[in-house]
Amino acid sequence: MKNSDQGEQPNVLYLDDFQIGERYLSNTHTLDEEQILAFATQFDPQPFHLDDNAARATLFGGLAASGWHTAAITMRLIVTGPVRYAGGMIGAGVELNWPTPTRPGDILQAESEIEAITPSRSRPDRGIVMVRTITRNQRGEVLQNMRSKMIVSRRISPS
Amino acid sequence: MKNSDQGEQPNVLYLDDFQIGERYLSNTHTLDEEQILAFATQFDPQPFHLDDNAARATLFGGLAASGWHTAAITMRLIVTGPVRYAGGMIGAGVELNWPTPTRPGDILQAESEIEAITPSRSRPDRGIVMVRTITRNQRGEVLQNMRSKMIVSRRISPS
Repeated sequence: MKNSDQGEQPNVLYLDDFQIGERYLSNTHTLDEEQILAFATQFDPQPFHLDDNAARATLFGGLAASGWHTAAITMRLIVTGPVRYAGGMIGAGVELNWPTPTRPGDILQAESEIEAITPSRSRPDRGIVMVRTITRNQRGEVLQNMRSKMIVSRRISPS
Repeated sequence: MKNSDQGEQPNVLYLDDFQIGERYLSNTHTLDEEQILAFATQFDPQPFHLDDNAARATLFGGLAASGWHTAAITMRLIVTGPVRYAGGMIGAGVELNWPTPTRPGDILQAESEIEAITPSRSRPDRGIVMVRTITRNQRGEVLQNMRSKMIVSRRISPS
């Protein structure tokens, strides 16, 4: 598995460079209550994302980050991770779910695995890479499962 | 269709109150370049989300908001919209895609439609509501399609 060390230049991968089953591990991001409240205030102002006391009476049982916050942090971890996709990390579509609430003090890390590689039939300059990304905390609990359909450039072949 | 007027109290809906086919229209959110750059700097620092010139040479053809930014704004529009779900708006899972890039100056509005209502077999106090939410800009272009599996409380029946 490729890990991302600080200071190491990321690899830029074209569609032709990907291999099914290859995995990439991101850096980590430590989440605190201040970040959770800031994101929730702006984008998801619900009691269980804003106030620990109010959250205790809810399904979450205590303050939890918005799922969209977990998703956004995961995107940052991917973008700053060990590989870059040629043309940028552009998702055509995603599926995601959040099996475990993300809590203050959680240290998030994302692991991505290449599941499928499909050259476009109509556009010879690109294709689709299906990627599964699991975001875990420091206890290995799965905070988010994501399956992404990524648009990736192909190498321009000398003709 | 129910619209949300400022000053009007939102309706709190229990699972039993939903009806398939019912639609809800949110308020609007006007997006500017400053917001796009702030979000991208924090969560999705890629050239096409940070720099209009750099974005011109990419698939986006100009500055575009991160898809996660569109998703986060949509969440805000839903949470501040005309209805509240009993127990809060808690998504067990979502699917989303972004057919049109979200641009500076876009005015976002979310329309949600109830697609299915399924009481839980194992948990009599809750159920699942499947909701489709389309986020459009002021020209009616679809910026985001989302299908959400929402966990909704049931009314406690007097026994």
